[in-house]
Amino acid sequence: MSDHNLQVHHLSREAFAPFGDVITTDGAESLIINNGTTTRFHDLAKVKTEGDDSRILINIFRGEPFEFPVSISMMERHPLGSQAFIPLHGWPWLAVVSEDDNGTPARPIAFLVTPDKSGYIGVNYHPNIWHHPLISLQAQSDFLVVDRGGEGNNLEEYFFDEPYLISPVAAV
Amino acid sequence: MSDHNLQVHHLSREAFAPFGDVITTDGAESLIINNGTTTRFHDLAKVKTEGDDSRILINIFRGEPFEFPVSISMMERHPLGSQAFIPLHGWPWLAVVSEDDNGTPARPIAFLVTPDKSGYIGVNYHPNIWHHPLISLQAQSDFLVVDRGGEGNNLEEYFFDEPYLISPVAAV
Repeated sequence: MSDHNLQVHHLSREAFAPFGDVITTDGAESLIINNGTTTRFHDLAKVKTEGDDSRILINIFRGEPFEFPVSISMMERHPLGSQAFIPLHGWPWLAVVSEDDNGTPARPIAFLVTPDKSGYIGVNYHPNIWHHPLISLQAQSDFLVVDRGGEGNNLEEYFFDEPYLISPVAAV
Repeated sequence: MSDHNLQVHHLSREAFAPFGDVITTDGAESLIINNGTTTRFHDLAKVKTEGDDSRILINIFRGEPFEFPVSISMMERHPLGSQAFIPLHGWPWLAVVSEDDNGTPARPIAFLVTPDKSGYIGVNYHPNIWHHPLISLQAQSDFLVVDRGGEGNNLEEYFFDEPYLISPVAAV
């Protein structure tokens, strides 16, 4: 296997913890509210924003499906805020992140995000975590995105000399 | 028709504007990002929080379905923050709001929230807007909820002397 072929990992809270939060009812704390008509799975992500004039935005991202092998040629990070992606359609998708290596992204780590028993899973990237832009699979897919708006440079990009490749192998 | 039977209205940005935001791609401004692979429908809701130690929470609410006629016996409001509901399953639901009448909720206004062509519609209640807790219809249904956490009293409730009723009539 070439150095530039990436394995695909199953998403779990533990594996994803260095990069952000997994947004799922599965294993989440809950409480019963609204006179018994609602279960609240509470505070599933650390939403953060920096900058006096900043605020949290709710957006919808519509992702075109990527074809395998998926080429990872760049990564980005948002120093001033977190960014959460929660699928509004039920298709699997890829969350690709990197640890930081002296200001540049280390070898990417790819997670296959498949719907849980509730029918969806989201993630929240913590501020300044290297990640690839949205990678939908199979079909055009909408995501609710909770991120930061405001002044200041909240985007850093890094382009790899040689792209990494993700093949349609089973997640490990 | 009794004074306490409520008509059901179709949800639109215009009709809902006094109470909050309608979260939908339909008619929203968009921009192409991520090297052409993503459409971003940008800044669809005014997310607000007050209080120095407050922060925005991402939660999932799982609503049990209500039976018709739906009884509206109380309303609540959150003085210190907005609260957004975006369905993660595709069932219709009811958003019930009131104008304020000297500190108590006026006659409720019921909106039937049916999936748009994208398959979902959400709403964001602005701070201090009277609304009924989540009313799912037809089936147990999950909603992503973006609201406020932190110290301070962010809940006010009002119970009507006589409940209002919503019957399963067509929306007007």
